[in-house]
Amino acid sequence: MANSRKVIEFFYDVVSPYSWLGFEVLCRYRNVWNVDVKLRPAFLAGVMQGSGNKPPGLTPNKFLYMAKDLHRLSQYFQVPLNVPSNPFEAMFEKGTLSAMRFVTALQESEVGGDKQVEQVSRELWTRIWSLDKDISQPGSVSEAAVKAGLSASDVEELLKLSTSKQIKDKLKSATQEALDHGGFGFPLLVCHVNGKAEVFFGSDRFELIAHCIGEKWVGPQPTAAKL
Amino acid sequence: MANSRKVIEFFYDVVSPYSWLGFEVLCRYRNVWNVDVKLRPAFLAGVMQGSGNKPPGLTPNKFLYMAKDLHRLSQYFQVPLNVPSNPFEAMFEKGTLSAMRFVTALQESEVGGDKQVEQVSRELWTRIWSLDKDISQPGSVSEAAVKAGLSASDVEELLKLSTSKQIKDKLKSATQEALDHGGFGFPLLVCHVNGKAEVFFGSDRFELIAHCIGEKWVGPQPTAAKL
Repeated sequence: MANSRKVIEFFYDVVSPYSWLGFEVLCRYRNVWNVDVKLRPAFLAGVMQGSGNKPPGLTPNKFLYMAKDLHRLSQYFQVPLNVPSNPFEAMFEKGTLSAMRFVTALQESEVGGDKQVEQVSRELWTRIWSLDKDISQPGSVSEAAVKAGLSASDVEELLKLSTSKQIKDKLKSATQEALDHGGFGFPLLVCHVNGKAEVFFGSDRFELIAHCIGEKWVGPQPTAAKL
Repeated sequence: MANSRKVIEFFYDVVSPYSWLGFEVLCRYRNVWNVDVKLRPAFLAGVMQGSGNKPPGLTPNKFLYMAKDLHRLSQYFQVPLNVPSNPFEAMFEKGTLSAMRFVTALQESEVGGDKQVEQVSRELWTRIWSLDKDISQPGSVSEAAVKAGLSASDVEELLKLSTSKQIKDKLKSATQEALDHGGFGFPLLVCHVNGKAEVFFGSDRFELIAHCIGEKWVGPQPTAAKL
């Protein structure tokens, strides 16, 4: 029955490296667990501001730990993540507003699934969180989108659409939804099981999520593990 | 060979509920993994101050999430944790300085292991994080210690010892060691493997810790799981 299938909404922003880890794990498990994954591009800076939360990296010991933690997790999760040479510039000065508007415009346009949203998001993460490249300029976003398989003309149209009021409002509304779910950071996972929404923050609750939705966690690489 | 055995130092304070979860998991795994666990009672408020970190619960959405997260984790970890009716009073106004000095005095006095340190710590956590009882008064600490199996005369002696300069300095020095390891919160786990120290924060990295020390993670209840 279609309505017995569980749904996991995944609120994310490509500014967030922990979101990338969670995204890849979820993209792997969507083919293994009995779940529908709904990618929900949103704007992390808006969630931080709306909830009054502060970026964790502002405490020096925490920043150093996070860099180490991300390095270890990237190896264990097999996600090629590297901290940019100037993370504060990349995350806070340049930011990801235009990139996330582009992903939102793509999601609005894509029909029959979210394969392109998945691929473009991955290419944007790869630029900022693996290759230390810009994603704040239209040319940078275009490069990522073309690499993800979009045509140059589609990209041009999406760049235009992404500055429209409709798309700005859609991103705002997704961000507000994350706040309404009690969000204060990303990734935010909203699991809909038996008509109830269970909200999880971060990429370190998958074992608990599996337990809550009645599925099995076998580590970050389910196809390599014995199921 | 004695020197091939891995060592995990566990820095904690009974003010921290996530430390309780990590503590119980580690107490279970110390009988399963090829590791020596060294309990390191320390003072969380000192680590927060020394690292410039702020308690996470000050952001309203984060506080609400943590309460939910702790509830779910306590069920999954099978640790009978309940958030006190006034967590801010229990954690910040009353605090745990005298309780952690008592545990430090006990560790200084105990010979042949740390079974009593383990049991008294558990009783203190049970009071503050399960039964919503005070642990800031000498009478409260005594009750916990007697419940853990200590004699009334031993408790009296330890209460006296716990206000000595020697014990105050020992707790300060453990707290400083946690800071020197890059700590900014508890629990802090320092894994010594092949002459190298790997530092982990929180109770949600056990799967990664197992991977790093070459052991197997089978969930929070290893004796119930198939190994």
